[in-house]
Formats: sequence, C-alpha cells, structure tokens
Amino acid sequence: MLALRLIERKRDGGRIDAGEFRALANAYATGHVPDYQMAAFLMACFLKGLDGDETFALTEAMLRSGETLDLSHLGKPRIDKHSTGGVGDKVSIVLAPLISSLGVVVPMMLGRGLGHTGGTLDKLESIPGFETALTLVQARSQLEQLGCALIAQTDEIAPADRKMYALRDATGTVESIPLIAASIMSKKLAEGLSGLVLDVKRGSGAFLPDLERELELASTMIDIGAEHGCPVVALLTAMDRPLGRACGNALEIEESIAALRGEGPSDLMSVTYALGAEMLVLAEMAEDHDAARRMMEIAIGTGRAAEHFQKIIESQGGNPAVVDDPALLPQAAEVELFAATRRGFIARVEPRAVGRGVSALGGGRTTMEDKLDLSVGFVITARPGDWVEQGEPLATIFAHDRAGVEAGRNALRAAISIADEADPPLPLVSHRVTSAGVELLVGT
Amino acid sequence: MLALRLIERKRDGGRIDAGEFRALANAYATGHVPDYQMAAFLMACFLKGLDGDETFALTEAMLRSGETLDLSHLGKPRIDKHSTGGVGDKVSIVLAPLISSLGVVVPMMLGRGLGHTGGTLDKLESIPGFETALTLVQARSQLEQLGCALIAQTDEIAPADRKMYALRDATGTVESIPLIAASIMSKKLAEGLSGLVLDVKRGSGAFLPDLERELELASTMIDIGAEHGCPVVALLTAMDRPLGRACGNALEIEESIAALRGEGPSDLMSVTYALGAEMLVLAEMAEDHDAARRMMEIAIGTGRAAEHFQKIIESQGGNPAVVDDPALLPQAAEVELFAATRRGFIARVEPRAVGRGVSALGGGRTTMEDKLDLSVGFVITARPGDWVEQGEPLATIFAHDRAGVEAGRNALRAAISIADEADPPLPLVSHRVTSAGVELLVGT
Repeated sequence: MLALRLIERKRDGGRIDAGEFRALANAYATGHVPDYQMAAFLMACFLKGLDGDETFALTEAMLRSGETLDLSHLGKPRIDKHSTGGVGDKVSIVLAPLISSLGVVVPMMLGRGLGHTGGTLDKLESIPGFETALTLVQARSQLEQLGCALIAQTDEIAPADRKMYALRDATGTVESIPLIAASIMSKKLAEGLSGLVLDVKRGSGAFLPDLERELELASTMIDIGAEHGCPVVALLTAMDRPLGRACGNALEIEESIAALRGEGPSDLMSVTYALGAEMLVLAEMAEDHDAARRMMEIAIGTGRAAEHFQKIIESQGGNPAVVDDPALLPQAAEVELFAATRRGFIARVEPRAVGRGVSALGGGRTTMEDKLDLSVGFVITARPGDWVEQGEPLATIFAHDRAGVEAGRNALRAAISIADEADPPLPLVSHRVTSAGVELLVGT
Repeated sequence: MLALRLIERKRDGGRIDAGEFRALANAYATGHVPDYQMAAFLMACFLKGLDGDETFALTEAMLRSGETLDLSHLGKPRIDKHSTGGVGDKVSIVLAPLISSLGVVVPMMLGRGLGHTGGTLDKLESIPGFETALTLVQARSQLEQLGCALIAQTDEIAPADRKMYALRDATGTVESIPLIAASIMSKKLAEGLSGLVLDVKRGSGAFLPDLERELELASTMIDIGAEHGCPVVALLTAMDRPLGRACGNALEIEESIAALRGEGPSDLMSVTYALGAEMLVLAEMAEDHDAARRMMEIAIGTGRAAEHFQKIIESQGGNPAVVDDPALLPQAAEVELFAATRRGFIARVEPRAVGRGVSALGGGRTTMEDKLDLSVGFVITARPGDWVEQGEPLATIFAHDRAGVEAGRNALRAAISIADEADPPLPLVSHRVTSAGVELLVGT
C-alpha cells in the first residue's frame, strides 16, 4: 500500500520524505513494487515536481539501494566528470587517462548511447578486446593500480536508478530536471567521489531546450552534491554543432588518441582543458586554471597521457597498440568525401541530424538491443562560420556499403546548411556554475 | 512507439484523437502495450484532463475493444441503472426485477465491492447457488426469456476498460471524472441500451468530494450517452448516511426482498421509486413520474415484482425460496444490539465508518482476493435527526464471533454520533440532470 499512498500524495502535489523515498526505492529495486506503480509515480513527479529536499532524498535513496565504491583508503582525490551528452562528445575518453596520469583517481562509470547522442561505452568497445563489464572488485583493483577505470554501470550500483532509468525511457518521464539530476548524481556519488565536474551541453543538440533549464539542472546537481558533501562545478558548453570533427564510435576513439597527443581539433582541446582544469583544481592538485592547464600540456607533450591510456586499455583487455596505430581500430569499407553544393558561409552543422545520420549508418542505437557497426560515421571538417566554395570537401563519410554512403550523404545534406550569411555559433564554454552561483565566462 | 508518443503528448497537455485512442485501447487489451506505459498515460490523463471529444473517443475505444450485447431484435426498451456506489445501496437489486417485471429489458452488468462500499455482485452471491458468471450467450438467452440478467462483467465486454480499471485502482488514477465517466459508460453502452438512469451519490459517503464534481460527472456521462445516441438521466441522491437500514451482503438481500414486497424502509423506497420512474419514462412505458410510480406500486402490491425476482434467481441457479423465507440466506452466529450511550439527537451516521465496519466484520473487501463472510453486517435503525434516550437500541450487529461483535461495536461507536443538536440531513433526491441541464428538485 506504500506505493499507492505515495503516488496519490505526489499526484495531489504533496511531499515525499526521505524515509518514504528510501522504502520505495528499495521495494522497487527488489521487485516488491511493480513497474506500473513506479510509472504512475514517476509521471506524477514529472508533472508536479520535486523540491530540493525531495530531490536529494530520492538521490540518496537510489544511491543506497546498492553498493558504493569506497576509495578513501587510497588517500588521493577522487574526481569524475559527467556530460549531459552531445554529438561528437569524446571528452571523457581524453580526460580520464589525462587526469589520472596526473595522480587523480578517476572512477568513471559510463552509459550506452541512446537517441541522437553516442555513448562513451560504445566508443570504447571499438578498441579490439576492450572490456567495460568489470565487477566492482575488478574496478577497485584497477583504480588502486592505475587511478582510472572506464566501466559500465554494474548491477551492484544504484539498482533502483538502473530500473527507473529504463522505465522512464519507456514512459515519457525522461525530461524532468529533478529526475535527471537524481539519476545522474546517484550513480556518480556511488563512486565515492571527492569532487565532480559537470559538462552541461547547450544549444540545439542538447537534450534540454533552453539556457534556463540547463542552469536549473546544473544548480540542482550542485545542490545535491553539496548536501552529500561532494563539491560540484558545472561548465555550460556549446552543442549547437558537433564537438570536434569525428562522429562515430571508432572515429571518435581515433580523434581522442590524437587529442591525447596534443593533435586534437582546437574546439575539442579547449573544452577538454576547461573541464580538466576544473577537475585538477577540485582535486587540489593545481592552484588555479592556468597551473592546471600547464600540467595537462606537459602530460600530453611528454607522451605520459597517451601512455597512461595504453595501460588502461591493456588492463581492461584491449589492444594497447591502437594508441600508436589507430588503423587497428575497425575500418569502414566505404569512404567517400562530401562536398559543398554551393559557395557561401556554413550556417549550421546541426548535431541532431548528424547524430541521426550516424544511427542511419548503423553506428547508433534506436533501441537498447541494437547491434552497432563501430566503424561508421563522419569526420566533418566544415565548421559554422567557415566560407566554402562549391565542390570544396566538407566532410568524409565512413560507411558499411554503398547504401550507407547514400544514407550518410542524405544525413549530411540535412545537417549542413550553406547560406549567404551565418550567425556566430555559441561560445564553446559560456557559463561556470558553482554553489556560489553562476559566472558568465564570455560576453553575451 | 505509439504509446510513448501519446504519453508524451498528453503529458504536455496535447490532445489524443479517436483513432489514437482506438489503437491504444486495442493494443492494451491484447497485451501489446505494457501496464507501465498505460499507467504513465493514465496519470498524465488524470493530471492534464480529457476534453469532451477525448472522453467520448476513449469510451468508444474501450467499448469497441470487445463484444457488445445487441438486443434490438427483442423490440423492447432496454434500460439500465447505474449507481456511483454507496453504503447500504441495494437499489439495483430492487429495481432490476421490479422494472423488468413491467416489460422493460434490464441487462445489468455489475461490479464487486472495493473500499468502503459493498458490491451488488457480492450481495447477490449471498443467495445460495446464485451464479453471476454468465457468458454473453447465457445472458442473452435469459434476457430474451425474463427481460433481466444480473451478471458480472465478462471478459468479452470492454476488455480494455477491464484491464484499465484494475490498473487505475493500483496507480492512484481512480478519481478522474473523464476516466470514471468513460469507464462506466463503455460498459453500460456495451449492453446495447436504449436509455440509462444514473444514481450519482452525494455527501460524505460518496466517492466524489463535492456537489460541483458530482454534477460534472453526471453531465460528462450524459454527454457521452447523447453522442452515442443513448439518452441518459441522472439523479443526485443522498449518501451522507447509509441508504435503508441493512449494511452487509445477506442483510441487504433480505431488505431488498422486503422492498419488493413494499415493506422496505421509506428512504430506500423513495430512492427506488424516483430512479424507477426515470427508467419507465425513458422506456416510454409511462407518461410521467406519477404514472410510473403507480405502475411500480401495482407490481409490488400484486406480488408480481417479488415473483419475477424468484424467476431470475432460479434462472441463475439460485434458491428462489429465499424470497419467501429469508432465513435461507447465510445467518450470522452472533447477533447483538447496539444501544445509545447518552440521550440526544442522532447527529451523524457516517457511511464510510459503517462501510469500514462491515469490512472489519469480514463482509467487505480491501483487496480483490479477499474471501467474504456474507452473513455479517449491521441493521441500523437510528437515523440522523432522531431523538434517542440513553440505552435505546440504535442498531443490530451481525458477526461471525465475539471478536466480530467487538469490532462492530467499535465501528458503530465511530459511525454514530449523538449530540444536543442535529443539522438536517441531505435531501434524498436533490438534483435531476439531463442533456437539457440541471433541475433542482428540492429547496436548498
């Protein structure tokens, strides 16, 4: 009767207390509350909202429905980074080895891609042999040795969240700030962090529709972290176009390796350094952002960051030789250029259309059961604001067959628009949000 | 993907069209849409509402998810009566044989009791041998012979509603006027009626909280009926105290038999005549309410109504001798008087407390699986406004054992209050609602 009582109370705009959330999450995780009751409860939460105390209580309830990583015996700062997701967003793959090579423990639990954004787990699995399904015991051991593990959310971590996340996806209850914040934070706080950096994406390719909601999500997560004793810093970054050039699983690994060598595209490097600097400052490894940036440049310039990635790959069963020879990654059978059909300014490179294009090529999921072709995707060299001549190459299509090339061509035609004028794109990193408030990093 | 699209649209305040409701109801009835998606959809409907067209479309969709009774070949008026449910409400058991004895076809599909109100099916099953689980073929045959069948909703009738009704009960989505109206009307219209009379209960024992919502429910059902081509008349009747004296399954059958002989309590007779007159006028068997009342009085006075009830009981496998000898009904082992503890006016006989008392005695359900003791309950002779002396009997408790007597005593103590003053109770029949509007039948 507990579930029904809580559904009715939330439906009527009432509040749920910490003990009730705890009982509900445990009953749901153990199968004592059926999916249909949780679905009705989630829709009531979606439409009636949760206040700050309720959001924190739900986070803690989901967190405590399972195991947590306790890494405090390592005596080192434990910092993770989370992104709300975007097209071409491979920053985690660069930051995890880079920051852990500097002595910070980075326990990174990752999700699969769904919808128009790719998943970091899928990308990592394009490295031959790379195993992401580690147990907590295996992850703990690797974190002790290398300070980094790149793993799938295990059944042991926040099982209530795991079930609720899948249910929300099927019941139209995804886009709720308190539910999103509690879901992310329950998993992240289960990693036993001493700090967390959030990359909240803005623009047409972000899953939230406007700046107001993005700032609300950031501050909701910051409040949960503060209440839990884990400082959180959020940066708002641009997702009105893909990040970097590569979009597609193996292609993004190749670009991540380039970035670890200092050869990544400038937009990817800027966002990586901005988020990495926040991680190092939170870890108290650097005094300020400038010092942090120098540390990262040294780790990259000396090859230490790339070598550390090799060790992580090897420890997780993958072939470390891909770092020196990216040709060992899955290769697409068909490779073809995509050229401008007219002269003008690149007005838009629409991330949702690019992401859907990767899916159309077989490289993205529309259901959790989809089997992916990890070799396919795009490398898009054209950027908003660029002037291009007719016939100039804008991108390369990587496809499984001729039909794939055609699908990719159609996707890029929809994604890339050329016009006589172009509006300036969003600044790469525009806002910094902490518990002290919102700091605007660029002129509007 | 249909269900998810409709969930999201309703969640965001959008409209669902007739074709979509039809597809959703069919997919749900056949198991192609899971309970959890329907639960989220129902909560979104509960909180965002359905307009008149949507409510009608949902009704038709549920109605057409299964079989319907076509009785038009009988060439007779087909009229049913539905009550929103109350404590001591045995009017259907009196009206069905009474009105069908006058040549009107009364195809009555009935529900089980849940919560504080008893179910007519449970009451009928206290008649030894009485079978309510008839197939549609059996029901049709009995309707041809006797003009009446008192049956449980079969699997063939509105299966989408059947599943949704059970789901709503578990997901806090019961008290929504459009959902209630569509559920009731889908079942009633499946009976192939030429007219329907609604008894909408008012007061503390009614399931809706105020007059405004009761009138809204009445007019929503009237609109659905009109759109379907079935005229509907609603009376608002008092449920601030139990109707009649008997509360409990076999006890209510005994009182219904008394009513069919013209010996029922006056409040029960008044409500029965008021609703019966509407049925006879809708059936075009009577010119007006006075003529209809005379027809009913004759059917009762000549014994024809009681005899007709015997035929129905016999046809459904029950022992018709109970009509002449109610002692053949289940008898409680313990029978004890309940007396006034002080002198004064009877200020309240609270129906919810009485209904919960019947459940506490073992005569009502709190879950659908509960097994009932059909013999237990109360006969409450005290009525609001009566003056009573200390020690004067107010009620009789019928229980399974001494513990039951004690539980019944506690329930009556909570239900019946005696004070120095008493407010007048609600008028028995206060409003008449038709497609022409609301008619106030008494002074406020």
